[in-house]
Amino acid sequence: MRAVVYHGPGRKSWDEVPMPTLIDDTDAIVRVDAVTICGTDLHILKGDVPAVTDGRILGHEAVGTVESVGSGCKRVKPGDKVLVSCITSCGSCRFCREGRYGQCLGGGGWILGHLIDGTQAEYVRVPFADTSTHPAPAGVSDEQLLMLADILPTGYEVGVLNGQVEPGDVVAVVGAGPIGLSTIMGARLFSPSHVVAIDLADSRLEAAKQFGADVTVNNSNQDPLEVVRGLTEGLGADVAVEAVGVPATFELAAALVRPGGRVANVGVHGEPASLHLEELWIRDVTITTGLVDTYSTPTLLKLAQGHQVDAGRFVTHHFVLDQFEEAYDTFSRAGETGALKVVLTRG
Amino acid sequence: MRAVVYHGPGRKSWDEVPMPTLIDDTDAIVRVDAVTICGTDLHILKGDVPAVTDGRILGHEAVGTVESVGSGCKRVKPGDKVLVSCITSCGSCRFCREGRYGQCLGGGGWILGHLIDGTQAEYVRVPFADTSTHPAPAGVSDEQLLMLADILPTGYEVGVLNGQVEPGDVVAVVGAGPIGLSTIMGARLFSPSHVVAIDLADSRLEAAKQFGADVTVNNSNQDPLEVVRGLTEGLGADVAVEAVGVPATFELAAALVRPGGRVANVGVHGEPASLHLEELWIRDVTITTGLVDTYSTPTLLKLAQGHQVDAGRFVTHHFVLDQFEEAYDTFSRAGETGALKVVLTRG
Amino acid sequence: MRAVVYHGPGRKSWDEVPMPTLIDDTDAIVRVDAVTICGTDLHILKGDVPAVTDGRILGHEAVGTVESVGSGCKRVKPGDKVLVSCITSCGSCRFCREGRYGQCLGGGGWILGHLIDGTQAEYVRVPFADTSTHPAPAGVSDEQLLMLADILPTGYEVGVLNGQVEPGDVVAVVGAGPIGLSTIMGARLFSPSHVVAIDLADSRLEAAKQFGADVTVNNSNQDPLEVVRGLTEGLGADVAVEAVGVPATFELAAALVRPGGRVANVGVHGEPASLHLEELWIRDVTITTGLVDTYSTPTLLKLAQGHQVDAGRFVTHHFVLDQFEEAYDTFSRAGETGALKVVLTRG
Amino acid sequence: MRAVVYHGPGRKSWDEVPMPTLIDDTDAIVRVDAVTICGTDLHILKGDVPAVTDGRILGHEAVGTVESVGSGCKRVKPGDKVLVSCITSCGSCRFCREGRYGQCLGGGGWILGHLIDGTQAEYVRVPFADTSTHPAPAGVSDEQLLMLADILPTGYEVGVLNGQVEPGDVVAVVGAGPIGLSTIMGARLFSPSHVVAIDLADSRLEAAKQFGADVTVNNSNQDPLEVVRGLTEGLGADVAVEAVGVPATFELAAALVRPGGRVANVGVHGEPASLHLEELWIRDVTITTGLVDTYSTPTLLKLAQGHQVDAGRFVTHHFVLDQFEEAYDTFSRAGETGALKVVLTRG
Repeated sequence: MRAVVYHGPGRKSWDEVPMPTLIDDTDAIVRVDAVTICGTDLHILKGDVPAVTDGRILGHEAVGTVESVGSGCKRVKPGDKVLVSCITSCGSCRFCREGRYGQCLGGGGWILGHLIDGTQAEYVRVPFADTSTHPAPAGVSDEQLLMLADILPTGYEVGVLNGQVEPGDVVAVVGAGPIGLSTIMGARLFSPSHVVAIDLADSRLEAAKQFGADVTVNNSNQDPLEVVRGLTEGLGADVAVEAVGVPATFELAAALVRPGGRVANVGVHGEPASLHLEELWIRDVTITTGLVDTYSTPTLLKLAQGHQVDAGRFVTHHFVLDQFEEAYDTFSRAGETGALKVVLTRG
Repeated sequence: MRAVVYHGPGRKSWDEVPMPTLIDDTDAIVRVDAVTICGTDLHILKGDVPAVTDGRILGHEAVGTVESVGSGCKRVKPGDKVLVSCITSCGSCRFCREGRYGQCLGGGGWILGHLIDGTQAEYVRVPFADTSTHPAPAGVSDEQLLMLADILPTGYEVGVLNGQVEPGDVVAVVGAGPIGLSTIMGARLFSPSHVVAIDLADSRLEAAKQFGADVTVNNSNQDPLEVVRGLTEGLGADVAVEAVGVPATFELAAALVRPGGRVANVGVHGEPASLHLEELWIRDVTITTGLVDTYSTPTLLKLAQGHQVDAGRFVTHHFVLDQFEEAYDTFSRAGETGALKVVLTRG
Repeated sequence: MRAVVYHGPGRKSWDEVPMPTLIDDTDAIVRVDAVTICGTDLHILKGDVPAVTDGRILGHEAVGTVESVGSGCKRVKPGDKVLVSCITSCGSCRFCREGRYGQCLGGGGWILGHLIDGTQAEYVRVPFADTSTHPAPAGVSDEQLLMLADILPTGYEVGVLNGQVEPGDVVAVVGAGPIGLSTIMGARLFSPSHVVAIDLADSRLEAAKQFGADVTVNNSNQDPLEVVRGLTEGLGADVAVEAVGVPATFELAAALVRPGGRVANVGVHGEPASLHLEELWIRDVTITTGLVDTYSTPTLLKLAQGHQVDAGRFVTHHFVLDQFEEAYDTFSRAGETGALKVVLTRG
Repeated sequence: MRAVVYHGPGRKSWDEVPMPTLIDDTDAIVRVDAVTICGTDLHILKGDVPAVTDGRILGHEAVGTVESVGSGCKRVKPGDKVLVSCITSCGSCRFCREGRYGQCLGGGGWILGHLIDGTQAEYVRVPFADTSTHPAPAGVSDEQLLMLADILPTGYEVGVLNGQVEPGDVVAVVGAGPIGLSTIMGARLFSPSHVVAIDLADSRLEAAKQFGADVTVNNSNQDPLEVVRGLTEGLGADVAVEAVGVPATFELAAALVRPGGRVANVGVHGEPASLHLEELWIRDVTITTGLVDTYSTPTLLKLAQGHQVDAGRFVTHHFVLDQFEEAYDTFSRAGETGALKVVLTRG
């Protein structure tokens, strides 16, 4: 079969590789029907994730059809159409028992396309298949479903639920890339009074409006603190979400929040930020960080099925699997191409 | 009457000053029966709190007897023995309605000995007396009660409740000064499996044992990370409380906590700390900051009354009001004198 | 002035009565600009609320303009346009400090038109005016605002928040009268997957659709258990709300809920219901009851202002104050007139 | 091997039966080292649980040593000393993923000694062994550990955690049998100000004092409402726990609670109770029911290991397995024998 294989920083190719085989009895082999590329894959390609080594098949999001399963699989069976979650869950360790699957101590967590071969391939081995896949519900297309592999639960869990968005809140989202947009879409489920999108690119702010932001701030020429204070009698946002991953945006999020407010960090960071405790110690703020756990996937499946979450809105470009090079190129030049999520399907 | 008057950095004196008078109809004038000195008062004397200006009477903790009240006071009346809380609450602003009295928008918050004259005096004017004082319960001595003005609710609310201590938890408290000890005492109310006190002074660690720590670490010669990991199968503490107020101790607290754990900052900080988001982004941590609100005072009063909180344990030295100079001296040289809290009473 | 005066069971009239005067210094006298009739007023007229005695002015909902205030009022001042909440709050008792204003121990709670003269009058005395009224926000009409006096916070707090409605939930609302409709409208703020309205009258079920129900069940000819199970893989509703006030509807709500689900009672009951503990003991259900506290009024004001709550939708009939007899007649024959809420304004 | 076999209402015997064998690959065969009898077993013997049929081996609590495991067991292995939980968990259904193991949809829940053969035997087959057993921690004896199979998590989860006991609370426990005593012991972990035990038998009230009740009421000659009101300024208990299982005790619990309080039902009921909604609708009460889930077992293991929960205190009588008849006799005549929990071990 063919797969996107990482060959060290800056190098990947659509290679012929051996078919995956069952290793543990809880594994399933899944034929990939639809797959996408994550911003994290671009980080890997830059060499930012040294745990990913030469020869690794990339990708941690897929919708597919089960080909075969080990004897330990009780729920998943050949022929099932499934969502392959970005997080693998052993189902029995302490953290999996708490629903904190991203921190799985039993061999799961974020492993696909990271510590084991991933989904950007014609077939993929999925460990702990019973607890790491979800049956496709009726009425949800493959490409809609694919958005529930990572982008939607990440914004919803790490941004919206960690930030404890409530009806009437003013929510500021710093960064309107895909993960910021997912947070905006998820925040709207709780009827905040305002969702303020903050970014440096007008094109992203335009997208933010489509996803549910009612106020947009280009912070190259407008002061987001002033805008947010204007909406909140000078107090600050109830919730501020960091959706970029650099110190400056985290510090902006922390500055935007009112006394008693919540700062939810969603961005993947490569260096420390300054935490202005000399100002924050007295302000009763709560700051959260988190890797997605995908505990919300059943909820999001219901909402997608009922068209209350418009999962398909993320998909801007379509390719077939053989076009992985073009797909990567389009996604990595999102500024020019306007790509949010690209979807690759079997031809 | 006499009072401790601030005269600029490094200068205070026990001066003759005019008696306070009722200004607003919700004011009470309270005769001070017992009063103490807070670490914050030492910060003020160093000039760290510029809002405190020459001529200000210091102090924000007292037990006293009501002398007179304005016509707007409905609950408090002359002759009542009351606890004067460090936090003043207007009772009707948005934050007071949420129990977030420390952030009062109606003229309260931390104002005594800060923005208005305080309690280190023979008499004090207490604004919003109905919502800023508590009647003394039977069976609690003045000096026990005095510990509920600030030190006990601060450790309990900002350390223990913000940190969400639960039965079976491993709780690490960084700093075993009075506020760390208060946190240790409060944490024990929730039956954690271990309370680990971390400090550089053996004398404080000895005190920590008296207040409920079952493990102590002198981090001048022992690695607290190793100790905490040894108690937690390598995962880290469920809750880490910062009770010092400098960057290094905050960073230690953040490093001590397990995936999914909580870091509660109690310390008063004067400069930023580094937040190691490059490690923390993926670890599902919750970090809280906070000024005490004193919403827990009714609970702590019940616990003190039932001897479930041993409030008197903090009191190491006794003075009369005229000995304020000696009391400050003893408290400011806590390393030598072993002072935790000093109490001054009418002679 | 004139007012609706209760003269014992079945008797009320639009009488000439003395103007109200300030009694306590925290009182305000408010000119009534818009007022409505509550189902509870009909209960009173039946004699079901013996605490209401001959001579009492009825009514506990109003929008008005402050005429005069006592010296203890710090926030409210003459000329202010205000919402008069159905719940009066002393602001300083234990329950008011917890936001549980409906249980006020300091002389508040539900007193207007019950223990003291009410709002169905040209003028009304409002005790504890600072903590019992809310300033009218810009962009909300008097009649929209009036819906926040009781009906909207009751459905939202006692139905939706007590029931802990969450995104993706199936919510069953038993009873589609005004309070059931308010619950349906409030539930939609949390993006449930289905809101099932259950009633015996098709006209009410038609209204339920307008307020946000996507499934309706006339339980005179359809089995609501079957419908709800069909939506929930046989498990039952996540949340069931009782919005009628008789044993049968409570028992239906308790039967509708899944293991682990929540039953929120909103109805006013006059007799005991059977609690089928022989079935429920093992099903992990949570049952809540409650009088509205109106702690959510600030949130609802924001949502009304942003048109996220369509408060005006309740208003089916308009009258002037002098038409109180007709208004009562229309409201009490809701089955024929289709009345949800009637509004009376100054001529 | 031998086992306690149910032969219809009123009949059981210590029979020779075939050894259990592995059926599913996730099963383990466990040699029973210590086992106890539950009040539920007495209900079964009365014929109250018709799902239990002739030939069934009784018992749902055990400590044992793993003899053999199926190929699907990844954590449990032969030779492991384990706690066999009363609740079996498939680990992958919707409810198991939420930690609501008692409601397992995948073939678990309360099945041992109920729907499949149980633990009152020399050997037992334990389904889903990885997620339904817990490794024995060091320093906890078999008989202490055995108390974590059912009695301790039931009181803690269904009584204490459902009742949301908090520091300073007044907790009333109606019924001081084993499950009431477990609730009392668990409540103390949260430092309530008073735990009031209510029972008709002085001997049980005496036991209640040993387990942590500081106030006892024999309601054959004392009015518990009066006692509880005397402790709570007339308001009622913060939390009332029903630990008997008959209508009268449930109704007492509901009457004991203050406005805003919580009623936690732990008792197993055979008939409906009256819910006095005509009084409760306005009182903001929360009523919970529940079967134990045993999600708290890891916490209780830590507390038992640290001697913060004195699990051994329940054990009043010791037997060897061959003495099952005597053990049942002693336990069923608890009123005379003073039995709380009886333990049977291999000879």
